[in-house]
Amino acid sequence: MPKILRINLTAAKISYEELPDEYALWGNRGLIARYLLDEVPPTCHPLGEYNKLILATGPLAGSNVTSSARLSAGAKSPLTGGIKESNAGGVAGRLLARLGLRALILEGRAKELSILKVGKEGAELIPAPELKGLGNYDLASRLLNKYGNKSGIISIGQAGEKLFPTAGIFVTDPAGSPSRACGRGGLGAVMGSKNLKAVVIENNGNENLRPVNPDAYRRAVKEFHSAILQHPQTSKAYPEYGTAGLLSTMNRLGGLPTRNFSSGSFEGAEKICGEALRALILDRGGEGRTTHRCMDTCIIRCSNIFPDPEGRALVSPLEYETLVLLGSNIGVDNLDWIAKFNRLCNDFGIDTIEIGAAIGVAMEAGILNFGNARKVEELLKEVGEGTLLGRVIGQGAEITGRVLGVTRVPTVKGQAMAAHEPRAIKGMTVTYATSPMGADHTAGITVRAQIDHRQPEGQMELSRNTQVNVAAYDTLGFCIFVMPAVGGQPQLAVNILNALYGTDYRDDFLRSLGKKVIRLEKAFNEAAGFTEAHDRLPEFFYSEKLPPYNVVSDIPAEDIKRFWDPDFWEE
Amino acid sequence: MPKILRINLTAAKISYEELPDEYALWGNRGLIARYLLDEVPPTCHPLGEYNKLILATGPLAGSNVTSSARLSAGAKSPLTGGIKESNAGGVAGRLLARLGLRALILEGRAKELSILKVGKEGAELIPAPELKGLGNYDLASRLLNKYGNKSGIISIGQAGEKLFPTAGIFVTDPAGSPSRACGRGGLGAVMGSKNLKAVVIENNGNENLRPVNPDAYRRAVKEFHSAILQHPQTSKAYPEYGTAGLLSTMNRLGGLPTRNFSSGSFEGAEKICGEALRALILDRGGEGRTTHRCMDTCIIRCSNIFPDPEGRALVSPLEYETLVLLGSNIGVDNLDWIAKFNRLCNDFGIDTIEIGAAIGVAMEAGILNFGNARKVEELLKEVGEGTLLGRVIGQGAEITGRVLGVTRVPTVKGQAMAAHEPRAIKGMTVTYATSPMGADHTAGITVRAQIDHRQPEGQMELSRNTQVNVAAYDTLGFCIFVMPAVGGQPQLAVNILNALYGTDYRDDFLRSLGKKVIRLEKAFNEAAGFTEAHDRLPEFFYSEKLPPYNVVSDIPAEDIKRFWDPDFWEE
Repeated sequence: MPKILRINLTAAKISYEELPDEYALWGNRGLIARYLLDEVPPTCHPLGEYNKLILATGPLAGSNVTSSARLSAGAKSPLTGGIKESNAGGVAGRLLARLGLRALILEGRAKELSILKVGKEGAELIPAPELKGLGNYDLASRLLNKYGNKSGIISIGQAGEKLFPTAGIFVTDPAGSPSRACGRGGLGAVMGSKNLKAVVIENNGNENLRPVNPDAYRRAVKEFHSAILQHPQTSKAYPEYGTAGLLSTMNRLGGLPTRNFSSGSFEGAEKICGEALRALILDRGGEGRTTHRCMDTCIIRCSNIFPDPEGRALVSPLEYETLVLLGSNIGVDNLDWIAKFNRLCNDFGIDTIEIGAAIGVAMEAGILNFGNARKVEELLKEVGEGTLLGRVIGQGAEITGRVLGVTRVPTVKGQAMAAHEPRAIKGMTVTYATSPMGADHTAGITVRAQIDHRQPEGQMELSRNTQVNVAAYDTLGFCIFVMPAVGGQPQLAVNILNALYGTDYRDDFLRSLGKKVIRLEKAFNEAAGFTEAHDRLPEFFYSEKLPPYNVVSDIPAEDIKRFWDPDFWEE
Repeated sequence: MPKILRINLTAAKISYEELPDEYALWGNRGLIARYLLDEVPPTCHPLGEYNKLILATGPLAGSNVTSSARLSAGAKSPLTGGIKESNAGGVAGRLLARLGLRALILEGRAKELSILKVGKEGAELIPAPELKGLGNYDLASRLLNKYGNKSGIISIGQAGEKLFPTAGIFVTDPAGSPSRACGRGGLGAVMGSKNLKAVVIENNGNENLRPVNPDAYRRAVKEFHSAILQHPQTSKAYPEYGTAGLLSTMNRLGGLPTRNFSSGSFEGAEKICGEALRALILDRGGEGRTTHRCMDTCIIRCSNIFPDPEGRALVSPLEYETLVLLGSNIGVDNLDWIAKFNRLCNDFGIDTIEIGAAIGVAMEAGILNFGNARKVEELLKEVGEGTLLGRVIGQGAEITGRVLGVTRVPTVKGQAMAAHEPRAIKGMTVTYATSPMGADHTAGITVRAQIDHRQPEGQMELSRNTQVNVAAYDTLGFCIFVMPAVGGQPQLAVNILNALYGTDYRDDFLRSLGKKVIRLEKAFNEAAGFTEAHDRLPEFFYSEKLPPYNVVSDIPAEDIKRFWDPDFWEE
């Protein structure tokens, strides 16, 4: 059985614990929910002594199963005040599993800025005041030099050190670039509040997963991979266009957040869409890549490397949510600018979604004009430097709105909406309103479903089933981009688990797992003070008609209420 | 029966309604709770189209009963997100009653900045864009010149126009000074969000209360007044020292908030206490007054007029909460400086409590030093001007703490604590934690009770009984400063009501009324998303020992839970 590494930073005390038997198949999001509910007072200050930061990987992370080694970070969120899990690709998840670890539980606060090194010989807390103020790129490069360039680095930039709730936790990819983000919910600020600048996971583990039924396991993995290699989304669209492929579709559906969520289509969409991105990368050549993996075992390879005009790698990947929140949402229609913004955000350690939404709000307040890319760059630098304006924007969209006097602020439970306009893609009204995570698209994306997205009927069920399904894959450590291919065939993942662990779960295992996880998360949030009153979008989504289709969020309140029907959740 | 005046500012539609029979004895705080619960969606945006601002007076406001004509403002609070009532003295309450009005209900938003004039001939909405940006003093003076200097002005300064949740609603006193504040909860921002700069209440009403039993009424009023004239607090301490008399006591008890709630005693207390204030006012003479009434009928006269060194009236009144939050809490020990701060706050229309707490937090963040009065003055001017720093501080203590990275922030439900340290005066731990109003001292002051304030035992019952009692007097439109004299003799107020309205309530009427009001407020808050998770102080009050007595808030969690025991509330 894998172990849990518990680090009390206040006492500089490190201990290993057995993973409880009942958690054997639990990883990532679900494991985080269990530990937070067990150990963290839901009403505690998110940046205070009682919150804990959990870094977890999943039950398949050490295997060769594609896309199954995500690293999750979790804590009580300083942005929402509720439970938060956010996950990323990169190498750290797999390296942790190879060291026989399922999770790190970080408690307390180090006396001075420190790093934690975790390897075969054990774990060590190392004071590192000299790293103060470093951006993620310099930091990763220094640490990889020192601890081996096959190590995995989990780190925060300046934003996390400054406790900004827009700060994410960043993870290095196979090339050592700290570009994979556990971006949402301000988990970087929780890490900063613990005076922890980075965790170095050494590449010296040799724990192998030993399948109970090796033949069945090989067969099951083959079937799983084969489904992915056959589905057009995972075998063609993702590798060719990445997540950016969604941009044209979303623009057509009128669901592309534009200029602080005041329109669902953007006149500059063609310049920043997946097709334009692919063409530009191919045209520039050099270090640019349209198809790129963020984890060693991934066969989907939806990532990309965006090159500057000279062909040098600038940022990797440039993704849909960034192209929208730091593109159409702030009126910018230029890929080079957006890539620069993204690079700055990665370096400072900032969530591109939350900061893009905050800048959109600042633009609505007249602090800068929509489309003024040069000013956006300056503003992002102010966030990194921590000027007063940078501090305000660095708090995210909600506080930016309050300070600047803007009431049109696209947040739910304090967190900014991702790039799926919930008035045009109505399933997202349900996902944003109900998810214990706040307005996260990853909690339950509905845009790929065969449904009329502008009609309210059926959206509650669609979102709820998707949320349950996602919660299960999130708990197994899978990247949710496997879901277009395998999401409708739960037996594919269940067969792998059964062969590996000698269990005999049936197809309904995933559904049951997903429900359990969301119930745990909801229990945490309820104890933290959330009620159904928080399951709603900001007022303007219900009344302000969104061009070009002049739609509002009109999911019946009754449907939102029914979302939490115990008959569904306790089955 | 008095009437309700309903003003839809969006449609510029004004209508008179009968006060429902069952509300005959309800005014101020209780009436506000009823109307808000009936008419305002608890989840609405506090500064959006669905919130309503209610200005209400009470069932005795037109009488000659002392201290019974408070004006209450109420709405969903932009500071707490919950229900809010805040009341003030001044002349407006009585003038409204003389016009036969119990309350104004303000809905929607005027197309341009407007004033509302209310008089015998009716009410009129008057566009007044020329008043934009005026402070309360200039504004009141202009309006009194135009509409008669015996009118009452209810107005907002620059802070309310800018939608700062530190903004209060100000009311003129008999001398026309806009110095009586419905200060707490950001109700000035709600008024600002309605594009309403002022309400002018003309002094041309001639409605008289006609007691059903005139003899009994005269007798009852006489008894009520005589209790007040005989009690040392209301007949001597309040008129001589005002509320400032509490400062020395509080310093001795170790409950005087000092330097952002890091100590309970202040080495400069002697320089800013009631005795020092009285001596300075008497010494300077001129327009200064140690004894002064804010309402025509008041026989307590706890207000004062603070003169500048030349004897000219600078501000009226200088009160305990201001002396602490803008004095010891920010390390300032000079009455002239505090009076200047107070004058600026009145002019900009800012709550001295919330802004003092916010400045204390900014000092802890190192933005300025504790005790640097000159910088405080500059900072207050920045709030009035709306510079970026001014906007941050203008959001109040909680947002200031978030933006500046301070976790020691003395707020409950988003609102700053008043000048009663809840670790040393433990009944206030209960009041602050449980009151639907957030950390308001007026919701249930316990410091005058005969109890060991540093012991947790009995504090829950003390606070709960006080809160119920206060809610009743608040609903009758009384100033709570009558309570030291009459709070323990409910028959004194009940006899007046019975004689006036021909009712036959018993002594328990007040207790029952208070409970009803708080239940309504709690119902609003529950629907707005508050749970028992919000009934707590910030983390540091439970763990950080407060000098000089090294006390923490240690009321048992069980007591806080029992606070809402249905057996108590539904009796």
